[in-house]
Amino acid sequence: MQLIDGKVVAASVLEECREEIASLKEKGVTPGLAVVLVGEDPASQVYVGSKVKTCAELGMHSQKIVLPASTTQAELLAVVDQLNRDTSIHGILVQSPPPPQIHEEEIIRAIDPRKDVDGFHPENVAKLVLEDPTGFVPCTPAGSMRLLAAAGIATEGAKCVVLGRSMIVGKPMAMLLLAKNANATVTVAHSRSRDLPALCREADILIAAVGRPEMVKADWVKEGAVVIDVGINRVPDPSKKSGFRLTGDVAFDEVAPKCQAITPVPGGVGPMTIAMLMKNTLQAARQLSGLS
Amino acid sequence: MQLIDGKVVAASVLEECREEIASLKEKGVTPGLAVVLVGEDPASQVYVGSKVKTCAELGMHSQKIVLPASTTQAELLAVVDQLNRDTSIHGILVQSPPPPQIHEEEIIRAIDPRKDVDGFHPENVAKLVLEDPTGFVPCTPAGSMRLLAAAGIATEGAKCVVLGRSMIVGKPMAMLLLAKNANATVTVAHSRSRDLPALCREADILIAAVGRPEMVKADWVKEGAVVIDVGINRVPDPSKKSGFRLTGDVAFDEVAPKCQAITPVPGGVGPMTIAMLMKNTLQAARQLSGLS
Repeated sequence: MQLIDGKVVAASVLEECREEIASLKEKGVTPGLAVVLVGEDPASQVYVGSKVKTCAELGMHSQKIVLPASTTQAELLAVVDQLNRDTSIHGILVQSPPPPQIHEEEIIRAIDPRKDVDGFHPENVAKLVLEDPTGFVPCTPAGSMRLLAAAGIATEGAKCVVLGRSMIVGKPMAMLLLAKNANATVTVAHSRSRDLPALCREADILIAAVGRPEMVKADWVKEGAVVIDVGINRVPDPSKKSGFRLTGDVAFDEVAPKCQAITPVPGGVGPMTIAMLMKNTLQAARQLSGLS
Repeated sequence: MQLIDGKVVAASVLEECREEIASLKEKGVTPGLAVVLVGEDPASQVYVGSKVKTCAELGMHSQKIVLPASTTQAELLAVVDQLNRDTSIHGILVQSPPPPQIHEEEIIRAIDPRKDVDGFHPENVAKLVLEDPTGFVPCTPAGSMRLLAAAGIATEGAKCVVLGRSMIVGKPMAMLLLAKNANATVTVAHSRSRDLPALCREADILIAAVGRPEMVKADWVKEGAVVIDVGINRVPDPSKKSGFRLTGDVAFDEVAPKCQAITPVPGGVGPMTIAMLMKNTLQAARQLSGLS
């Protein structure tokens, strides 16, 4: 059984980024990422902090904008508009989830699609479906694809089952696996699918992205399958100082022995998400500067 | 075995259209469709003729614009631009395939997405993925969904296999079946999939959209499956005056006896495509007139 180490693969992605940043800087371009946080959700604060820290470590420009939880839609739109115009910023993301008074879809639409490094703007959704490489691929599925490649897993002709149909992971993951450069046979299964265990057991490659702790059991997985666990769930654990531990959508201990390869949680897909965000920001910087 | 009669279902869709057109006209809106044909491809001439004729039968306004095969990209863009501005026109389509000097993707992008009744503009592609009902769904997959509904076939939890991953049928069909109002488990299989017969045999509902005459044989289909045959292939037939006959992607004679329900070719999906085009044009007329 091969443990696919997301920290190692993410580090190599970040190393690629470092080289590309050096080359961009030689051409007078310092890639810049703006991260907007509305409110004080503790998990969001951690994510935003990691993103800004990674930018700093790579020598990228970053701007962290923290707005009060009472921020109005109009105020947030004004911030996005200003970032759209700011030539030192190539990537913009508004950390999810925003407070309830914010209409997130409208905010995403307001981001200049050329700076939409999360890949959630409709223009980038369409580019993904149309296999247009100038679009931005959402970071988590992009990172999952990269993990497969790094582990030497061939997708061509493979039976892939994507468990979950979210706009952030399930649907874009299915599109990536179906694209001509991956050529997988793709099944999307979800909460309304009949006999999920049997469906999942058919997978050569199983992508679990449902957000339910340890839902995928040993009898859901074919002997010799590859499992990518996208879930990052907090479950109560009194033995931890934080009061919780992180677990994936896969019951790792019982599933791992059956697998050809599997990603752990934490340390699997998680570290890839930030790394792919950095890669997207460099793509934005290149494209906005006419360098690619 | 139930034969799903596309002519009957299309007629009922057109009857709905007739009622809606009457209601729109009462409100001072006559729905209008512009069809642009570049060159003299005989099949395209037939398709364009049918579309314009259907408009006339329904009492809709239509405009047929025939341009020489030598038309330049700039000339075609100018025609599209004029139609975008024409308030008597609510739907615009440029018949495919255009001559080789035309860059079709750019033409599609130039059509006002609010008038893109073919549903090929990136904005409508994204709306389909995002399940936004203000978008236009491509006519052939929309018609296939309507055939399933008319035949009383439940998609909820059903195992659907879509054979083919084109932007015109396969991918949008997969999105429609996966959407929350259909809730199917969806597999997209294609030329690079391993063991297509076995994959297809798992389907409760099989959608064949590969454009290969009679590719799907009896042993590709599970006993009691529902089969939607999207293929419309011309095969040489000296016994016909035209020199060819139409056949689907499914070997109908051997497959039909195994099916719970199946669409014939011709007379299945084909008639639905024009009917759904009319429906899309009415949706455009409503939306552009602020009536929905």
